[in-house]
Amino acid sequence: MHRALQLAEQGRGHVEPNPMVGCVVVKEGQIIGEGYHEKFGGPHAEVNALANCGGASLEGSTVYVTLEPCCHHGKTPPCTDALLAAKPARVVVAMQDPFPKVQGGGLQILASAGMEVCVGVLGDEAQRLNAPYLKRQRQGKPWMIAKWAMTLDGKLATANGSSKWISSEEARAEVHRIRGLCDGVMVGSGTAKLDDPLLTTRPPGPRTAARIIVDSQASLSESSRLIETIDQAPVIVAASTSARSERLERLQHAGCDLIVCPGNDHAARLDFLLQELAQRGMTNILVEGGSQLLGLLWDNRQIDEVYTFIAPKIAGGKDAISPIGGQGILNMEDATPLAETEVRSFGHTICVHGFTGFAA
Amino acid sequence: MHRALQLAEQGRGHVEPNPMVGCVVVKEGQIIGEGYHEKFGGPHAEVNALANCGGASLEGSTVYVTLEPCCHHGKTPPCTDALLAAKPARVVVAMQDPFPKVQGGGLQILASAGMEVCVGVLGDEAQRLNAPYLKRQRQGKPWMIAKWAMTLDGKLATANGSSKWISSEEARAEVHRIRGLCDGVMVGSGTAKLDDPLLTTRPPGPRTAARIIVDSQASLSESSRLIETIDQAPVIVAASTSARSERLERLQHAGCDLIVCPGNDHAARLDFLLQELAQRGMTNILVEGGSQLLGLLWDNRQIDEVYTFIAPKIAGGKDAISPIGGQGILNMEDATPLAETEVRSFGHTICVHGFTGFAA
Repeated sequence: MHRALQLAEQGRGHVEPNPMVGCVVVKEGQIIGEGYHEKFGGPHAEVNALANCGGASLEGSTVYVTLEPCCHHGKTPPCTDALLAAKPARVVVAMQDPFPKVQGGGLQILASAGMEVCVGVLGDEAQRLNAPYLKRQRQGKPWMIAKWAMTLDGKLATANGSSKWISSEEARAEVHRIRGLCDGVMVGSGTAKLDDPLLTTRPPGPRTAARIIVDSQASLSESSRLIETIDQAPVIVAASTSARSERLERLQHAGCDLIVCPGNDHAARLDFLLQELAQRGMTNILVEGGSQLLGLLWDNRQIDEVYTFIAPKIAGGKDAISPIGGQGILNMEDATPLAETEVRSFGHTICVHGFTGFAA
Repeated sequence: MHRALQLAEQGRGHVEPNPMVGCVVVKEGQIIGEGYHEKFGGPHAEVNALANCGGASLEGSTVYVTLEPCCHHGKTPPCTDALLAAKPARVVVAMQDPFPKVQGGGLQILASAGMEVCVGVLGDEAQRLNAPYLKRQRQGKPWMIAKWAMTLDGKLATANGSSKWISSEEARAEVHRIRGLCDGVMVGSGTAKLDDPLLTTRPPGPRTAARIIVDSQASLSESSRLIETIDQAPVIVAASTSARSERLERLQHAGCDLIVCPGNDHAARLDFLLQELAQRGMTNILVEGGSQLLGLLWDNRQIDEVYTFIAPKIAGGKDAISPIGGQGILNMEDATPLAETEVRSFGHTICVHGFTGFAA
């Protein structure tokens, strides 16, 4: 199953909004075939692994697969059909698929055909691997990855908004790598105005992230670099119902996708926006600040994964800007510890990566 | 000279306000004696190293010493006398001593006696080793070590001041180790009030740090834990001239040392305080916050060394407290990079250590 998880991981950035899945076929203690879901729309892991067996008989074999085999016709025929035809003795599955058309149905079909079926082997690892897919299935919202760079004294920007460049070139390259695996990159209108960022992925990765501007008043400038480069990656402007229609029209004319979010407060509009993005097929969104947007998401427990880049330099200033705004907590004991924390270095910059566990 | 620097380091916490000094005697490629300044008031490194040679003739030998040998009568006779008597062929010195009664005088005496004298070997390392001593000699101020613990989103405390406990037990043990090497531990009146800290060293280290409260209005409570434990380590209250004399008297009666700092603003009073502490023989002061005191020191370029403890947890909150307050900088490009940065882990907590270079 370890091997199957490794294989599955290779689909990251290529298979979404499908889950990543890996599959290994073992007979008499030997791996006789392996495969993974390589690309959205392409054959599933089981089909690839069975094809990789080179026609060997699967009598007495065990199929290890990281997610319950599908039992419905989607872009491809059901994987249960392929397994029923191949007739392995045993199917070992890391976790059930919460997808409404599967949900245990695949397992049932295999068991009914007389195969030994076993679920839950390395289940936690499989849950972690497909956490973004699972959040989208279960909550109808995309997996939100927060990224910020700060000084050693916790400043995202100085009091007058200057933030270039806190982190090292190596750290910025890592951010581009992450962008290239995401469906969207999200910033607030303040960051769009102040930094006039491109938010494109350089060099490009497997996915092209849409650039999502949370911009209640639809105030994004038509002469911004975002709109200048609209042919390179979509620009989605998420406005409120109070945005002036003239502004909305101008942005639409400039080529932006508009999402007008109903709701009386930031939280309600954000909720709508995330659901809308998930419905558009978005699994992973990278939030690149600023403090206000990160604070709003944080207070709404809509940050799932965190990359903090810490530069070994000091800015000072009580009015400098902190990475996460919003309400926050009152007792330090209530701070959220990150799980599975990893510390890496990118040049002089330290990166701390971990998971909040909010979506679990 | 590397070995001599290693030896010198062993005096840390024991020799101050003297400098740390190490000495190695080499003859025909062999170390025949070594020593270091072990304890304030005790024999200097050269005397210890020569005694360690076991009476061997020093003819043709080289003496390596990390600091210019003294040429004046202090607590002990001049080291130049010991060297003149031992007659090595060569004396190699890492750096001159800026101490007013030495300042090249020691080197001159040795050279006049016909010895070959060489200065500057591993000079940068020697400067770093004795940076606190050198700052006190050159600027008449103690070496200031800032320490703070913050969350991964750069919060020192929540909006209502809660800060217990951000870092791990292992990190707190490291702070106690550092305290035990310092002459003083400094906090502001806000931290004294809010946290009611002990600021003692547990377990004790080589030095007993005085607890210094920067407290313009002499507002420290007589029922604070600081005053309750006044028999364990001195409490110094640094007040302004506007503090009510009745308050000062009460604190004096409770056993506090008072330093009434003249000056019209925080910066002037702070300047006075640091000079006064240096005059009292203090070489190293550990500043344990809060945000306001660290900000004031930062704006006055009076932080020399930094220990940042970063806990992998998130608090959020735009009104939460940032590690360094004060004015700060306006352009991120002007942030001060730390030199010789080191990253270590204490349990889950990450520690970044480095030097600002302000005292150079």
